[in-house]
Amino acid sequence: MYKYVLKIKCSDSKGLIYKISNVLYKNDLNIEKNSEYVDNENKKFFFRARLDGTIDTNKIKHELQLEMPKDAKITLTKKVKKQIVVLATKEAHCLGDILLKHDSGELNADILCVMSNYDELRTLCERFGVTYHFVSSDNLERTLHEKRVLEVLDNYNIDFLVLAKYMRILSEDFVSRFEQKIINIHHSFLPAFIGANPYKQAHKRGVKIIGATAHFVNNNLDEGPIIAQDVIGVNHEQSWRDMQKAGRNVEKTVLSNALDLVFDDRIFVHLNKTIIF
Amino acid sequence: MYKYVLKIKCSDSKGLIYKISNVLYKNDLNIEKNSEYVDNENKKFFFRARLDGTIDTNKIKHELQLEMPKDAKITLTKKVKKQIVVLATKEAHCLGDILLKHDSGELNADILCVMSNYDELRTLCERFGVTYHFVSSDNLERTLHEKRVLEVLDNYNIDFLVLAKYMRILSEDFVSRFEQKIINIHHSFLPAFIGANPYKQAHKRGVKIIGATAHFVNNNLDEGPIIAQDVIGVNHEQSWRDMQKAGRNVEKTVLSNALDLVFDDRIFVHLNKTIIF
Amino acid sequence: MYKYVLKIKCSDSKGLIYKISNVLYKNDLNIEKNSEYVDNENKKFFFRARLDGTIDTNKIKHELQLEMPKDAKITLTKKVKKQIVVLATKEAHCLGDILLKHDSGELNADILCVMSNYDELRTLCERFGVTYHFVSSDNLERTLHEKRVLEVLDNYNIDFLVLAKYMRILSEDFVSRFEQKIINIHHSFLPAFIGANPYKQAHKRGVKIIGATAHFVNNNLDEGPIIAQDVIGVNHEQSWRDMQKAGRNVEKTVLSNALDLVFDDRIFVHLNKTIIF
Amino acid sequence: MYKYVLKIKCSDSKGLIYKISNVLYKNDLNIEKNSEYVDNENKKFFFRARLDGTIDTNKIKHELQLEMPKDAKITLTKKVKKQIVVLATKEAHCLGDILLKHDSGELNADILCVMSNYDELRTLCERFGVTYHFVSSDNLERTLHEKRVLEVLDNYNIDFLVLAKYMRILSEDFVSRFEQKIINIHHSFLPAFIGANPYKQAHKRGVKIIGATAHFVNNNLDEGPIIAQDVIGVNHEQSWRDMQKAGRNVEKTVLSNALDLVFDDRIFVHLNKTIIF
Repeated sequence: MYKYVLKIKCSDSKGLIYKISNVLYKNDLNIEKNSEYVDNENKKFFFRARLDGTIDTNKIKHELQLEMPKDAKITLTKKVKKQIVVLATKEAHCLGDILLKHDSGELNADILCVMSNYDELRTLCERFGVTYHFVSSDNLERTLHEKRVLEVLDNYNIDFLVLAKYMRILSEDFVSRFEQKIINIHHSFLPAFIGANPYKQAHKRGVKIIGATAHFVNNNLDEGPIIAQDVIGVNHEQSWRDMQKAGRNVEKTVLSNALDLVFDDRIFVHLNKTIIF
Repeated sequence: MYKYVLKIKCSDSKGLIYKISNVLYKNDLNIEKNSEYVDNENKKFFFRARLDGTIDTNKIKHELQLEMPKDAKITLTKKVKKQIVVLATKEAHCLGDILLKHDSGELNADILCVMSNYDELRTLCERFGVTYHFVSSDNLERTLHEKRVLEVLDNYNIDFLVLAKYMRILSEDFVSRFEQKIINIHHSFLPAFIGANPYKQAHKRGVKIIGATAHFVNNNLDEGPIIAQDVIGVNHEQSWRDMQKAGRNVEKTVLSNALDLVFDDRIFVHLNKTIIF
Repeated sequence: MYKYVLKIKCSDSKGLIYKISNVLYKNDLNIEKNSEYVDNENKKFFFRARLDGTIDTNKIKHELQLEMPKDAKITLTKKVKKQIVVLATKEAHCLGDILLKHDSGELNADILCVMSNYDELRTLCERFGVTYHFVSSDNLERTLHEKRVLEVLDNYNIDFLVLAKYMRILSEDFVSRFEQKIINIHHSFLPAFIGANPYKQAHKRGVKIIGATAHFVNNNLDEGPIIAQDVIGVNHEQSWRDMQKAGRNVEKTVLSNALDLVFDDRIFVHLNKTIIF
Repeated sequence: MYKYVLKIKCSDSKGLIYKISNVLYKNDLNIEKNSEYVDNENKKFFFRARLDGTIDTNKIKHELQLEMPKDAKITLTKKVKKQIVVLATKEAHCLGDILLKHDSGELNADILCVMSNYDELRTLCERFGVTYHFVSSDNLERTLHEKRVLEVLDNYNIDFLVLAKYMRILSEDFVSRFEQKIINIHHSFLPAFIGANPYKQAHKRGVKIIGATAHFVNNNLDEGPIIAQDVIGVNHEQSWRDMQKAGRNVEKTVLSNALDLVFDDRIFVHLNKTIIF
């Protein structure tokens, strides 16, 4: 099994693969798998390799830096479990799925705590021995509520924030503190049905397929880079509540698939899109 | 095999099934299959039955009318091939699929003619012995072009107009002449990517799934009642032209499925949505 | 909301809908939704209705019996939560999903207890306050092990047994005690990959799609009536363990969908196939 | 756009990517995209690159051969349209789809001719100006029929034989002449429903999903390496003929997708499985 993930993003030029593989070969590193993609339109090169062996990461990074174009962003990270905080509101299905996978050792992450603006999910979390923070948003301005949330989060060293049906809109300021570190599950097939109650919107529009979208959160609501999507068929007999119920299985599966990709360092974000290796 | 299709739409009340089945039973009619749906929110009842036997349609309709609520819309139509005109522009895949199915006897319709605002598809149509009308839109105002199209259409007794990638927007006036008789295939998963070049939009947004939507045309572009939808997965490696190519198989399949439903009289339209039996 | 479900299965003849709806109408019953299907090949009629109102079930059944063909099987059941026992082995994902849905009130059933041939899942069940019976199969003949399982089950009044990845083959005798009452989730797209370790088989065969199948258990292993199936794409990079991991989300969703159908009395079994309304 | 495809298959060892990219870099070749896969279980390395530029293919191959393990199979082919012959029987949908795509310039191949054991599809082919050979199998032993087919095929320089619903079983001898050059579309989700009339089998088994499989043909009927698969949902109302009709859209799409992959040199075959880049 691989121990390190090397990721490189730079402007494209001839011989990059040769130069990278040269450094790795000279250092006697075993490449378990490498992937690359060139965005020809924007002349950008993306590379990811899973490496095995004993590595002096600074040395490798330095040697690579010498060979790569000047704009190269190089990361070489040891494969360890990500440290995450899950934000939720009242719905249990996405959070419950994450807790179950965590419990079975299938989630490539440690759950530091769960934070919610309601107290409904406390029992569920405590059953799994996970710390629960209830930070009420009642009668609070968004800024003030977020301030209290941040006070809680400040106690943790967080790799990723997972919004498991967290039904609050985050401020620009909040989001900017966690760039490309917040993953949200939206209960529609984005960009269809942006905003409130997508199932009601879908029902009203009479679509024959509904879906869910996991994406990184940026400062435009529901418009961050998409990580994963999936859909199911619906028909005229289903009320919006039926659609909501049917959609829950899709929501949790899409979020789960997205988290697997994120936690395995398989994603680049570029121009509001994801490149997934 | 059934010979007639009975369709009833009316306000809901108790005993409708009993009253309908009573009339049919008294007239010794064999119901091959019946379906019904009640929209509880709007108190509307929808019913469709496939009938076998020899029928005095006026008598049956009259007897049903006496039993049903006053607002009942009752149709009892003999099962015959629909008479259709196909409108296209330059792309061959949807038109070609329709011509092939027509040729194999799999399309429950007769193609009266194909009409296009370009001459590119003439050879394809003539190969299948289908009349081709080229009505150029060059340097013509929309109204004037539609006037010429309508002059051609006036020669035919048309049940349905099929827009097989017809890339012109139809005027309100045109659409109102063919209420619930125009079926369009839109090359996106509506309501996502309304308007021009959905594949470019999808590529720019970085979605992981694209789709196609067949719908009845009403006076709001891309907003008519949806009949059928389907999707396929895409990834970061695909340019918008790759997506367009991949999408063509979905477009033609979705249109084909929608036409089967329409030509078999299986659809009610209600509040801009379809009820499909 | 409906309170009763009426199900009728009989040989087909003219006027059945009329006769049924007549009885219901005379008794002033509100039909919320009815569905029927005729198997023309085998001349069988299937009917299901959701009824609202106050019902003298014996009276209705009697009146229907008088009108229906002699072979008619008529059930008229009050809509109540099903009483279920879940059998599992070591894998937590299907069981966990059921426990979560039960906990959220989304499962239309009460879990009487969980029974396993291993002790691994005890903690999970106890977290949710569900009784756990560990009935070891170590060094036990199948008959003897089943005897002990039955001793446990005898304490409960069971509507359905749910095999949530229960990895033991059940004997004919055991199955015959619970006819059409055992639902299993099989980790392949049946009838492909019957038997042991379907993911290994799928990997070896090099399929591009894998799936899961929920079915009633009969006396032929993996050959009972299929209730629900779903699939996901796979590729050459995935080991059988990767497929197994990816398949888990499908397994639990398919089982969950099947349980919804079963617990809502929406299924007829006929000639080893399901008719689902 | 790329002009050459380099494919390498060899036993795995350290530094292969470095050695390959070194040769390409020294020869000033632009790699538009490269992909590789290591089968760790069998210690096999697979590599494919799309190359741009002017190439002395013999020189490059020679230099690569010196660097690669001794068992390396290296192909470096100019990107040109494949020369194909289509074999069909009576059904028009797959053949028609291929003819349409060929006609629109979307098929990366030239159709040398169509060969059938019936005369039904002659008109369709002639409409598209494609030569049609009718080689009757009536009253002929398989060996003799194949002899006549081969006499026809001998007139062509064939890259691939496409079985577009060719309903004859090919002999071992025939297949061995076209190793990894025959692509078949099977009308089931293999390995389910091997053999005759899969739709009848699927109907009888009561599956809820049917599918189609495109695969290379080897000497075991329906057991060659799978290239592409897809599925659609079905229900109890559909007769096997309904399934057959619904399945046709899947069959032609799956075959079309498989042909795109094959004609773009994107496939390795290894241990009866495909590796697709």
